[in-house]
Amino acid sequence: MEEIITLDYGSGGKKTARLIETLLVPAFSNPALDSLSDGAILEGDARLAFSTDSFVVDPVFFPGGDIGKLAVCGTVNDLAVCGAEPKYLSLALILEEGLPLTELERVIASVKQAAEKAHVQIVTGDTKVVEKGRGDRLYINTAGIGFVRYPGLSSRSIRAGDAVLVSGTVGDHGTAVMLARSGMMEGELCSDCAALNGLCAALLSSGAAVRVLRDPTRGGVATTLNEFVEGTALGIVLEEDRIPVRPQVRAACELLGLDPLYCANEGKLLAVVGASDADRALAAMRETGEGRDAALIGIVSGDCPGRVVMQTAFGGRRILQKLSGAQLPRIC
Amino acid sequence: MEEIITLDYGSGGKKTARLIETLLVPAFSNPALDSLSDGAILEGDARLAFSTDSFVVDPVFFPGGDIGKLAVCGTVNDLAVCGAEPKYLSLALILEEGLPLTELERVIASVKQAAEKAHVQIVTGDTKVVEKGRGDRLYINTAGIGFVRYPGLSSRSIRAGDAVLVSGTVGDHGTAVMLARSGMMEGELCSDCAALNGLCAALLSSGAAVRVLRDPTRGGVATTLNEFVEGTALGIVLEEDRIPVRPQVRAACELLGLDPLYCANEGKLLAVVGASDADRALAAMRETGEGRDAALIGIVSGDCPGRVVMQTAFGGRRILQKLSGAQLPRIC
Repeated sequence: MEEIITLDYGSGGKKTARLIETLLVPAFSNPALDSLSDGAILEGDARLAFSTDSFVVDPVFFPGGDIGKLAVCGTVNDLAVCGAEPKYLSLALILEEGLPLTELERVIASVKQAAEKAHVQIVTGDTKVVEKGRGDRLYINTAGIGFVRYPGLSSRSIRAGDAVLVSGTVGDHGTAVMLARSGMMEGELCSDCAALNGLCAALLSSGAAVRVLRDPTRGGVATTLNEFVEGTALGIVLEEDRIPVRPQVRAACELLGLDPLYCANEGKLLAVVGASDADRALAAMRETGEGRDAALIGIVSGDCPGRVVMQTAFGGRRILQKLSGAQLPRIC
Repeated sequence: MEEIITLDYGSGGKKTARLIETLLVPAFSNPALDSLSDGAILEGDARLAFSTDSFVVDPVFFPGGDIGKLAVCGTVNDLAVCGAEPKYLSLALILEEGLPLTELERVIASVKQAAEKAHVQIVTGDTKVVEKGRGDRLYINTAGIGFVRYPGLSSRSIRAGDAVLVSGTVGDHGTAVMLARSGMMEGELCSDCAALNGLCAALLSSGAAVRVLRDPTRGGVATTLNEFVEGTALGIVLEEDRIPVRPQVRAACELLGLDPLYCANEGKLLAVVGASDADRALAAMRETGEGRDAALIGIVSGDCPGRVVMQTAFGGRRILQKLSGAQLPRIC
């Protein structure tokens, strides 16, 4: 049977990784791309970070944000976790015929507000329209350029004993969007959608030895942590009861059959820092609005190479694999 | 009645311009965006050009190219006409559930080949999948970064007497795609889809006084020339029998009720150069493969301010307005 693209390929999990690794990277191999971080760091007249993301979230408006805010924050965050100061964004719209103009205006107002808040400028753009039934209201692509201020962040610099930090509660975005889509409990849960450039700058300028930063979007915290250690001699041991999860998120996940560790976040930062710098890093993160609930959630260990292991509240251990299948299609 | 987005808004003509001018530019106003060129020129540690385009062409494969080649050439060309040397591209895919993997592989091979030919690297990317019926096989966004080598190109530097040049035959892409879509005469007409960075560099390094460059895509030559002079005290007078049009394109346009001057091109350059430099500029263009059919097609005049006027082969004159309505939806 002919292989076809299924929704799994867009999940941010195993199938997405396979597509990237077997089709896309071999086609375009170059040092900037091969690092497979969320943005590329470019050597040139200046040191630039460059990133792109398309946003297809359904519904377009959800508690805590909308596709416009998401499109700004998502690309700003991809640049910020490269150690860059995000400066310029492009904005490309694919509109479905029949979209009410008022809805587009609302999204653009949201893009504008999010860009101002994140101190980035929209400097170029494009607009395409497709026939009714060939899109879904609107899709947005943003690409972004930043100037690299803290070079050298990489999961390859992680060492045994390092501390694994998260900037706040996990799973908020994924569960908020799923509930909004289902029409249940709307408003009780809010997406965490936020720009993290201020938080990243605070952490990076604190003097803590920061190894790597990443925003755990599609695939969630579990998938991102797996990406940090896969294929290496190191693993990560998480302590379940240290991972901040809102009670409403936990309840919603039980209702929907989801795991908060695999739910997308859109305003959270994962950081690996030197063991002795954990307190300093947490203090720096907590001084910002986005990092006020920052927590130490685990350590890097040589005992479980290539794996992410969860130490449960009851003393058990389970392996957290990368997301497989499309847990939450069109979550961002 | 509530205003809705119609296909006209994606035509590259009047409605697209209205959307950009009334909604997008007011929202994001800044010097780089306000110039409304195809790319933004950024002041920073280095002088960068930045551009983005989404591609939704239907069909995905057409004589002379496919959506992958188009996505590379389109963004390369937007950078090249800014006077920049295109260096880095992003590649963001929106795939429709059910797309055969072989089709994606074919498109990626085409992206790879076009990028190599244009000497640009794909350095970052993104993949999203939407449900069947929420897309159309695949949409591609590319954003690009280039280093500005020839600053100052702008339609504001056009003067009366300047020569208007085109790099070759017009209307090839638009008619090839429309015929491919209709199933008629497939293969007889070929898209001109090509990267123009070599041609632009040849022209710019020739020493000719180049005022402005632009690749006339959606909306065609007539719309781009209108953009050069609208709101100014200058107009452009074209001589109909100097405009190179392939006989097959002319025949196809008659069949389809189109005008080659409003059909999209994807490998053609419009250049305005100082009157005394026209020959030197044409010679430089003709030395490249993409510019071998370059021609002088008109002059800039103070007699028809803000207008593009066609001097017909029979001695008449008619005004060429900007494209209005969606002549060719999803042409790129």
